[in-house]
Amino acid sequence: MSTDFQNRFSEDARVMRENAIRAMSKFALKQGVIAFSGGMPNPETFPITEISQYAQEILREEGATALQYGLTQGYTKLIEALCPFMERRKVEGVRPENVIVTNGSAQGIDLVGRIFLDPGDVVLFELPSYVGAIFSYANYRSEAVGVKHDEGGTVLEDLEEKIRQTRRSGKRIKLMYSIPNFQNPSGVTLRRDRREKLLEILCRENILLVEDDPYGEIYFHGVDPDSLVPIKSFDRAENVIYLGTFSKLLAAGLRGAWVVAHPEIIHKMELAKQVGDICGSSLDQRIIYRCLRENLIDRHVPVIRAFYESRCQAMLAALEKYFPREVKWNRPRGGLFVLVTLPEGVDMPALLRTAMDQYNVSFVPGQPFFVDGSGANTLRLAFSKETETNIEEGIRRLGGAIQSHLSMMNRSPNEVIAR
Amino acid sequence: MSTDFQNRFSEDARVMRENAIRAMSKFALKQGVIAFSGGMPNPETFPITEISQYAQEILREEGATALQYGLTQGYTKLIEALCPFMERRKVEGVRPENVIVTNGSAQGIDLVGRIFLDPGDVVLFELPSYVGAIFSYANYRSEAVGVKHDEGGTVLEDLEEKIRQTRRSGKRIKLMYSIPNFQNPSGVTLRRDRREKLLEILCRENILLVEDDPYGEIYFHGVDPDSLVPIKSFDRAENVIYLGTFSKLLAAGLRGAWVVAHPEIIHKMELAKQVGDICGSSLDQRIIYRCLRENLIDRHVPVIRAFYESRCQAMLAALEKYFPREVKWNRPRGGLFVLVTLPEGVDMPALLRTAMDQYNVSFVPGQPFFVDGSGANTLRLAFSKETETNIEEGIRRLGGAIQSHLSMMNRSPNEVIAR
Repeated sequence: MSTDFQNRFSEDARVMRENAIRAMSKFALKQGVIAFSGGMPNPETFPITEISQYAQEILREEGATALQYGLTQGYTKLIEALCPFMERRKVEGVRPENVIVTNGSAQGIDLVGRIFLDPGDVVLFELPSYVGAIFSYANYRSEAVGVKHDEGGTVLEDLEEKIRQTRRSGKRIKLMYSIPNFQNPSGVTLRRDRREKLLEILCRENILLVEDDPYGEIYFHGVDPDSLVPIKSFDRAENVIYLGTFSKLLAAGLRGAWVVAHPEIIHKMELAKQVGDICGSSLDQRIIYRCLRENLIDRHVPVIRAFYESRCQAMLAALEKYFPREVKWNRPRGGLFVLVTLPEGVDMPALLRTAMDQYNVSFVPGQPFFVDGSGANTLRLAFSKETETNIEEGIRRLGGAIQSHLSMMNRSPNEVIAR
Repeated sequence: MSTDFQNRFSEDARVMRENAIRAMSKFALKQGVIAFSGGMPNPETFPITEISQYAQEILREEGATALQYGLTQGYTKLIEALCPFMERRKVEGVRPENVIVTNGSAQGIDLVGRIFLDPGDVVLFELPSYVGAIFSYANYRSEAVGVKHDEGGTVLEDLEEKIRQTRRSGKRIKLMYSIPNFQNPSGVTLRRDRREKLLEILCRENILLVEDDPYGEIYFHGVDPDSLVPIKSFDRAENVIYLGTFSKLLAAGLRGAWVVAHPEIIHKMELAKQVGDICGSSLDQRIIYRCLRENLIDRHVPVIRAFYESRCQAMLAALEKYFPREVKWNRPRGGLFVLVTLPEGVDMPALLRTAMDQYNVSFVPGQPFFVDGSGANTLRLAFSKETETNIEEGIRRLGGAIQSHLSMMNRSPNEVIAR
């Protein structure tokens, strides 16, 4: 009789670790804290009135089916509506057998890992990349290999080099995971002219692309939407698994995302989901369908774009004003994030503690986003949660925290190390 | 460039198979079919009016949080409400760290597999047992060992014998999966005096019990609720992972179930769920919480019990009236299912085809529920979906189909084989 479960857990379970970002979400709720840490959309962008009205209509008109188990693949009308929706994103010829609805893109990402990854398989990630995907694939005991990323996204020469290196060591590369548009955490967009070439390389090398596109519709003024065209739109070889979501377009709590891929992949994901949770929320899926049917997204998306653009501008202005000269950042043209690069050698955990304890402001250290362990001097700022006034004040505070850390570093390296 | 995904799928994905029962759900929707196949609750038992009212209140009072991401472990107020709810089920001392909310019990079952099962590990199942759990654990390439089941549930002598045999062959037994109350598919309840003994054996042998209890509240007149007490209530050694669900008490489409276990197990499940789907539907969880807060379940459960009891009686009466003498079945005192045993040698796939094509009635063959491949002459009838009139008519039809098959078997074995 023993409660020593550690020795009974599966090999996969033993490698599972806490996602540092999720663990921070409690701090962000503290009174007086200005939070740049959480990557969630701002609830002010949720069309609550319409969602409430649709929920009411659904429960009145079709309550019995809206509260019953649904098909594993998803609510049929939602799947059918997603086909033309994908066409608006320039992905042609999507049919219902190419689609599965998932509980957020997180489930789509995880199901892809479940059906493709054996221990030791390699997944290619941008440096940096989304920590949720990194953790999901790590939990299948796959190996992550990082590919360089610059202001134009994935560096194709490095991609080819990493493929060669990995192959040379005898490892099997199964997937590349990429967020081409306004990437989390960097805010960077894959340059238009690299998109087809990236796909060519992956097709040639027999590596499936997991194209995660949660932010593609959240672009700011002056951005040509054609520059954000999904890689899936060039995918004659059915080499791309495309992930879309309504988390940022409608509401994150309605667990409604979808995957577009070859029917064989969709079918296998369906088998995994069938035992994984049978089906998603029938009510959530019907609400989302009605939002599509009533063109709510079309009416609503311009509001969301303007909302995040003004916050992004507030943050960029405050960064100019309050951050020390040695600190660098990018100027995203969409999405929710800015990535900040501090001078090498900064003690990021100490800076985070100072920021939280003394300055009441939170951010996310960048290192967990870099699968090669680099990025120790980077941090991610989300401009989604706070008001413009708070953004200015929060960046002022954080600038102060950084300034004090940098002066300490410059004054006395030994003293810093001794902390 | 290749779309031959089969060679790229993971080892786990290669063993994933279609769940025959879910695959039949489309047939059950055909006009004129009387369906005894689907195991879902009857939507007439869903408190649609109240759910609609609560949804409205939630979206008015707390729309911003109800549509935002929630914690992976589940909505805090729901978790807190589940602690006293478990006390009513005689499970004392449950604290929030013992609980995780899942998207249906299916997700709870699957997460347990994810954190405990390595390929080759053994899971003990009753003969028969729930096909969803059998498939989930098979997908982790675990091995299923069947334990005999009689009208009093698990046969403890056989349990001990199977443990000995399995250990002798050098295999590691990780879990036993059991549905003690009104089991799916058999309708059988584990006898009260076997409950503590079953747990003693499993504790002694260091085998965790997955106690799945979806039907324990759905008992009929004359049943002493104390006879249905969860095995978890005796669990001083924290050896039981208890699964509860609102699918049958409120509505199946609201994906709201929960797991009660040792905090280390809950924490590991939370890590797996964090990458698996981040969180469940925030709206669904708030609706369920409000149903608990407003005591809707207390008011509603007697209605549900009476609803299924009258249908069960209708089915048992019709079985007496229309089924040939050679056919046997049990008389469940709760739940949604009756298991029927036909004479050995019946061609069940042929009977199912006849029933569906010629008699417009559906059932589920029993064999997939038996992990040892037995049960070829059994079938499961769900009395949940149809009206009492339809139940009588459907059993009349099915009796006819069985009668014609049995006479064929008796008349000319060769002729039957030649079909």
